[in-house]
Amino acid sequence: QLEQKLAQLHPADVAFILESLPPDAREAAWGLVRPERRGAVLLEINEAVLRALLGDMRPEEIAAVVRHLDSDDIAELLTELPEELSQEVLVRLDRDDQAEVRSVLSFPENSVGSMMDLDFLSVREDASLEAVLRLLRRQKSLPPEINQLIVMDRGGHLRGVLSLEQLLLSEPEREVKDVMTADPTYFYTGDAIADAVTAFEKYDLISAPVVNLHKQVVGRITVDAVVDAINERAQSESLRQVGLSEEEDLFAPAMESAKNRWPWLALNLLTAFVASRVIGAFEGIIVQLVALAALMPMVASIGGNTGNQTVALVIRGLALNQLGPTQLRKMFSKEFTIATVNGSLWGSVLGLATLALYHQWPLALVIAAAVLLNLWVAAAAGVLIPLTLQRFGRDPVMGSSVLLTACTDSMGFFIFLALAAVFLV
Amino acid sequence: QLEQKLAQLHPADVAFILESLPPDAREAAWGLVRPERRGAVLLEINEAVLRALLGDMRPEEIAAVVRHLDSDDIAELLTELPEELSQEVLVRLDRDDQAEVRSVLSFPENSVGSMMDLDFLSVREDASLEAVLRLLRRQKSLPPEINQLIVMDRGGHLRGVLSLEQLLLSEPEREVKDVMTADPTYFYTGDAIADAVTAFEKYDLISAPVVNLHKQVVGRITVDAVVDAINERAQSESLRQVGLSEEEDLFAPAMESAKNRWPWLALNLLTAFVASRVIGAFEGIIVQLVALAALMPMVASIGGNTGNQTVALVIRGLALNQLGPTQLRKMFSKEFTIATVNGSLWGSVLGLATLALYHQWPLALVIAAAVLLNLWVAAAAGVLIPLTLQRFGRDPVMGSSVLLTACTDSMGFFIFLALAAVFLV
Ligand SMILES: [Mg+2]
Ligand SMILES: [Mg+2]
Ligand SMILES: [Mg+2]
Ligand SMILES: [Mg+2]
Ligand SMILES: [Mg+2]
Ligand SMILES: [Mg+2]
Ligand SMILES: [Mg+2]
Ligand SMILES: [Mg+2]
Ligand SMILES: [Mg+2]
Ligand SMILES: [Mg+2]
Ligand SMILES: [Mg+2]
Ligand SMILES: [Mg+2]
Ligand SMILES: [Mg+2]
Repeated sequence: QLEQKLAQLHPADVAFILESLPPDAREAAWGLVRPERRGAVLLEINEAVLRALLGDMRPEEIAAVVRHLDSDDIAELLTELPEELSQEVLVRLDRDDQAEVRSVLSFPENSVGSMMDLDFLSVREDASLEAVLRLLRRQKSLPPEINQLIVMDRGGHLRGVLSLEQLLLSEPEREVKDVMTADPTYFYTGDAIADAVTAFEKYDLISAPVVNLHKQVVGRITVDAVVDAINERAQSESLRQVGLSEEEDLFAPAMESAKNRWPWLALNLLTAFVASRVIGAFEGIIVQLVALAALMPMVASIGGNTGNQTVALVIRGLALNQLGPTQLRKMFSKEFTIATVNGSLWGSVLGLATLALYHQWPLALVIAAAVLLNLWVAAAAGVLIPLTLQRFGRDPVMGSSVLLTACTDSMGFFIFLALAAVFLV
Repeated sequence: QLEQKLAQLHPADVAFILESLPPDAREAAWGLVRPERRGAVLLEINEAVLRALLGDMRPEEIAAVVRHLDSDDIAELLTELPEELSQEVLVRLDRDDQAEVRSVLSFPENSVGSMMDLDFLSVREDASLEAVLRLLRRQKSLPPEINQLIVMDRGGHLRGVLSLEQLLLSEPEREVKDVMTADPTYFYTGDAIADAVTAFEKYDLISAPVVNLHKQVVGRITVDAVVDAINERAQSESLRQVGLSEEEDLFAPAMESAKNRWPWLALNLLTAFVASRVIGAFEGIIVQLVALAALMPMVASIGGNTGNQTVALVIRGLALNQLGPTQLRKMFSKEFTIATVNGSLWGSVLGLATLALYHQWPLALVIAAAVLLNLWVAAAAGVLIPLTLQRFGRDPVMGSSVLLTACTDSMGFFIFLALAAVFLV
């Protein structure tokens, strides 16, 4: 009866169950999913489990499973497979499907073309609404997320859209061209997915036509795909923050992943090396007062921590278009005030702890002052680094944190050891 | 003619223009927006500019502007105002609006009730589709994002939904109850927004009814609000990563923001203090070989950096439900392999740099070994820390990074200095 249960569930729920089962039980449950529903389930499943399930199947079997899907969905699944296997599945599909799948696969990864849905309903400008209603009634079902019909001329060029609302509210005798929206939001296959996402967010779209360079309609994008794109963007952002690039890292062989992380590691090592040389310049003072060696990482660490908070606020402000010149000045002065408050407070705490440990008033004062000064550095660097990256056309998310830490580490060591050199030795 | 231009633009585009202008020009442009469109523009504008614009207006003026909006949208705007001002605006609204706005405001911030839309169209089960079509044709327009009518009984209880698709494709003679979906996805006002978001993502919903505890329909949520909720979630996540909590930090007075950051700073200082005590335990060795003081932060830093990459991967895996026991074992062994490769490589690089600087082979070997060992620590801690936080019901995003750095700093210092103590002095 598990089989019956699975047949009643939404494919996304079946996918969730499969994801949650251990591999053996998963294999067994997968066998109970009706063949004609397997494609729909695969579309909803996460990449790791998808690869595990498809990894055991022969190309003919995969072709038999995906055959029930729309060609854009087949393309979506094929992009998850190794290139070779994907080709072997492709040649086993029907001729029409093959052509459509190939066309979707030919669009670059971040283009609207790669995420579009190929099925849409179109009508002519000069049709009466009554004729359109009759046409609809002859269909068994509509493509999902249909909220509008696409109005095309004989050559397939986009003329407008007719929303189901307009269709329902208007007199049936009227013609499509009198009630349609003549200047709808539409996208070219080559547009960036990010731009489409922005438009969907801004104008609260449910679906929009996609056209080729001749403005002929080739498909549409729907809000559910946009929701998925937004989620993917959020995830890739949190990975980019630590210098990782999506996919490759979760499924690439270890050696490849290791290599992908090299540029980031090299940058980190370089900045750490600079910080180390700052300390090296003060070795003479450290030998005279070895407590400095134990205390200096605290000054650096608290600076890195608070600076990264400022960085996060600035990055958010940039993303939300909230940082005009006034806002920026306000933020700058606010972060300095916070740094002053927190620097005085936590500098004092650290100073007292130092006094308790080392019983040296001058040392306690030096560390308190160093904390305050390094928090000022952190506030300034926290605002300026992401702004500068953005100004030079770089992604402010990527690298901000490493550069910030480089600043607060080097400057933290320098400020503390220099103060010590002047006042203590 | 700017006035005319503004009148033709989508409110979201007007909002974008206002956001991009400096304050003086913004005031001027705002004056050119037609009064009846101002409410719609305010709904689209970011919080900083919203407060700037409303800050200059008297309660009567604000009430006059928002009067044109739906009551749920009024509620949304009022939550952005200071409590007192919001009350003063509220009492100046029409009686009906007041009651509705108050009811929306009464729902907790993260509940479906607080994000729902109050307008929906409902029909009776025993109506014929023809009657429904007639009813629709009497409306001038439908509420936005309408893809289905809500089927209620006489007492307002949810009976099902009738999609526009079903309405259009079925024979007009049939009754609503024969074609409606009798078990639609619906939400209670008290449900968490996060759960609604998950359901919209999973089932590709456009809108869904919202009911009270008696299962009476009180509103609906629409996909455009869900898109906004997803974006907000992503932003709040990137702030939580560095220990900040949303709103308060962008607009709270500096003193309050400073206080909000204290728990995080205290935790950071505490862990930095532990690391400092680790170094303190080896002061005797540092005095004998002061190069150790300059080199030790590099070992710690490279560990923190790579460990945070592992943390990001694990957090993503947890969010996507991708980390079953098998996956976890795979990931663990992969991260160890990467740590071994990178540790050997970059350990050697660091060893050679040390050799060049200090001309001491044993010191070079010790730092190379310390880097490799600390990358193993980073890999283990990077996997275990977020998993443990999650296991104990904590948010793995919040705090992972501070705890990881605490591990890699303390252990980095310890490993390096202990190896030095054994092999060098
Ligand atoms: Mg899923
Ligand atoms: Mg698709
Ligand atoms: Mg794709
Ligand atoms: Mg399709
Ligand atoms: Mg929107
Ligand atoms: Mg909206
Ligand atoms: Mg550090
Ligand atoms: Mg906006
Ligand atoms: Mg609303
Ligand atoms: Mg709200
Ligand atoms: Mg409304
Ligand atoms: Mg979905
Ligand atoms: Mg879907």
